[in-house]
Amino acid sequence: MHQLMLKNIAQLVTVRSNGARVKTAAGMRDLGVIENASVLIEDGVFLWIGGPNDKHPALSEDATVVDASEKIALPGFVDSHTHLVFAGSREDEFAMRAEGKTYQQIAEQGGGILSTVRATRQASKHDLKRLARVRLDAMLQHGTTTVEIKSGYGLDEESEIKMLECIQELAKEQYTTVVATFLGAHAFPPEFRNSREAYVDLLRDRMLPYIGKRGLAQFCDVFCDAGYFSVEQSRRILEKARELGLGIKVHADELAPSGGSALAAELRAVSADHLEHIDEASIALLKNAGVVATLLPGVSFFLNHSYAPARQLIDAGVPVAIASDFNPGSCMSFSMPLMMTIACTHMGMTPEEAITASTLNAAAALNLSQVYGSIETGKKADIVLYDVPNYRYLAYHFGTNHVSLIVKHGTILEF
Amino acid sequence: MHQLMLKNIAQLVTVRSNGARVKTAAGMRDLGVIENASVLIEDGVFLWIGGPNDKHPALSEDATVVDASEKIALPGFVDSHTHLVFAGSREDEFAMRAEGKTYQQIAEQGGGILSTVRATRQASKHDLKRLARVRLDAMLQHGTTTVEIKSGYGLDEESEIKMLECIQELAKEQYTTVVATFLGAHAFPPEFRNSREAYVDLLRDRMLPYIGKRGLAQFCDVFCDAGYFSVEQSRRILEKARELGLGIKVHADELAPSGGSALAAELRAVSADHLEHIDEASIALLKNAGVVATLLPGVSFFLNHSYAPARQLIDAGVPVAIASDFNPGSCMSFSMPLMMTIACTHMGMTPEEAITASTLNAAAALNLSQVYGSIETGKKADIVLYDVPNYRYLAYHFGTNHVSLIVKHGTILEF
Repeated sequence: MHQLMLKNIAQLVTVRSNGARVKTAAGMRDLGVIENASVLIEDGVFLWIGGPNDKHPALSEDATVVDASEKIALPGFVDSHTHLVFAGSREDEFAMRAEGKTYQQIAEQGGGILSTVRATRQASKHDLKRLARVRLDAMLQHGTTTVEIKSGYGLDEESEIKMLECIQELAKEQYTTVVATFLGAHAFPPEFRNSREAYVDLLRDRMLPYIGKRGLAQFCDVFCDAGYFSVEQSRRILEKARELGLGIKVHADELAPSGGSALAAELRAVSADHLEHIDEASIALLKNAGVVATLLPGVSFFLNHSYAPARQLIDAGVPVAIASDFNPGSCMSFSMPLMMTIACTHMGMTPEEAITASTLNAAAALNLSQVYGSIETGKKADIVLYDVPNYRYLAYHFGTNHVSLIVKHGTILEF
Repeated sequence: MHQLMLKNIAQLVTVRSNGARVKTAAGMRDLGVIENASVLIEDGVFLWIGGPNDKHPALSEDATVVDASEKIALPGFVDSHTHLVFAGSREDEFAMRAEGKTYQQIAEQGGGILSTVRATRQASKHDLKRLARVRLDAMLQHGTTTVEIKSGYGLDEESEIKMLECIQELAKEQYTTVVATFLGAHAFPPEFRNSREAYVDLLRDRMLPYIGKRGLAQFCDVFCDAGYFSVEQSRRILEKARELGLGIKVHADELAPSGGSALAAELRAVSADHLEHIDEASIALLKNAGVVATLLPGVSFFLNHSYAPARQLIDAGVPVAIASDFNPGSCMSFSMPLMMTIACTHMGMTPEEAITASTLNAAAALNLSQVYGSIETGKKADIVLYDVPNYRYLAYHFGTNHVSLIVKHGTILEF
């Protein structure tokens, strides 16, 4: 038995859920803040949480006690949408965009997703893991303790499997909780440019059964949008995934209102992601189906595109999460606090909503909100201390890392 | 004599000026990059700079040698526009803006600049210094080695002097090169709400002579804009400052096209800052007068306002600098790389232009480009190493700090 006690936390943001899967509407502003709080962790799980006048259980003799005066604490961030396993980089496209080229023009010239596909196909699993480990550790140092990672830079059987095995090994070897999503339907590979249906068949009839059988992914995702996978193609892929027991996610309505969110609702997906161009009817469908809307503020910022209607989604009662979408093309950043800053300055989200969206609701977007995403007894003890006067500073004082201590599954991590 | 040698720098970005005060137009893209470079520093000054095939001078026996393989190096950033001496904080206004209140609505309700004035008047010089030291050290850790700091949260004689003395003492005590600007004309203090001319008289006839005599500031700045100081009031203050030997800066055309840039050109100011609403005629005036246009990407981002026309200014031949404007209301960030990211994604600046704007041209905005802002023999040795594959990553991989080693005046700083 190992005990860790964090004492006198100036402001403990519990994001209490009281057992609910997600928080919606006004609930997203209820952070369950306790001033001068203490937290007792035993064997990696929150055992007790209390305020200054509450009596904590007796500590074991070898308990570690940390004084957290003048710190604030939050649940570890859950980054529920990333593409962080990749080789190569795309800083030259970034420079081209600065000169006025659009993301789609660059893609048409052989850049975009397919440039990362070329580099990732060439990389060994060993190299991909080496690159990804550095990124996961850097994310931990910025307060992110759970990360979803998508495949989708392979786009052939061998390379997609390589990516998923890489993610699976990272999940075993890293401190971070890693969740794998199969995104073979990220783009059409060059080999199938003129035979798109054949690629859909390949995904559905060969790759998915292999992945399902070996448990290589918890989720299946499809980029359902104008110029990418049609609603009908997406449905064929996702229905198969569901049959195989995978959870469902949809890249939806990013480039145009294209039916992706409606499909997510129809298939009871766990999340619909992006939503920069979602329409009102689809918002109602997500609400009724309880689908988490995962918004990606960093993409709109980095590409200087329009933002998802966060305010409308929250006011309509849709559970909203935010994620980094960390990837080399459309958001080369993994900073969850910076995503919160963008959400607050450009999407009309309050600092409180941004925190709920980065913790509990993000965990729900991975079917993990019974285990992670809030500081409540019985949940796994992922808790991060910050050197700021209060929780609003995380989004307010942007562009610097305020993390002071990281606890993952009850263990203090040192870097 | 002390020597420091940085060897095998993968990519050395010299921002070479060849003696020019500023870089303009296409010159802003010429970074003078040397691959596998080495740099020899003696007594705080760059003595020798060379490529892999150049022979360096003989080293003294006690020279420090640092291997910088796999690092890139840039001149220390010059942040030429900040308000970093302040007490209090305004995260609650940040939250109000997220809910749809505008910056001006908040100011009308007693928030805005005047809320920081209240807190700063109440703070002792000792407390202001304690707060500012932490900020300056954090900025150094993010690669900023020279910082301009404005007064302007006092708005009475005693408090403005307190701020300027605080800045002067920081300049003596900190590693950072600190430049002081008198901004008594930041806003009209509540005591003079109904007697604005009397406040202008106070600035001109009492404060400025005192400050000029004691050398408490190198520059005088005025917030010349709709609702703040009129062009005529600004001219009266700035002409007096010029008589007293102070350099001139103008907060110009931020809220509306209001003649501030034209005044800056007329008075041969060293810089005109903000310029979100500058018109074409004023751009030509700045160009002809050689005034540095200091743009503040973080303000437009943080307030979700319009951006200054960086592309037009550069193409017109105006020397452009960027700065953080670090302050608790309109940009709570001091990260120069993040300012570069915003400049590239939202203002049409290339990564190369953003670097020149953050180094040489920013030094020129402080009349210091003969001493700082580039890595050239004879200049003071402010050089920062970064853990990235190439210089474009600084703006591209945003939201995290890539600094690996900081050298200020030839000394390696440890934190």
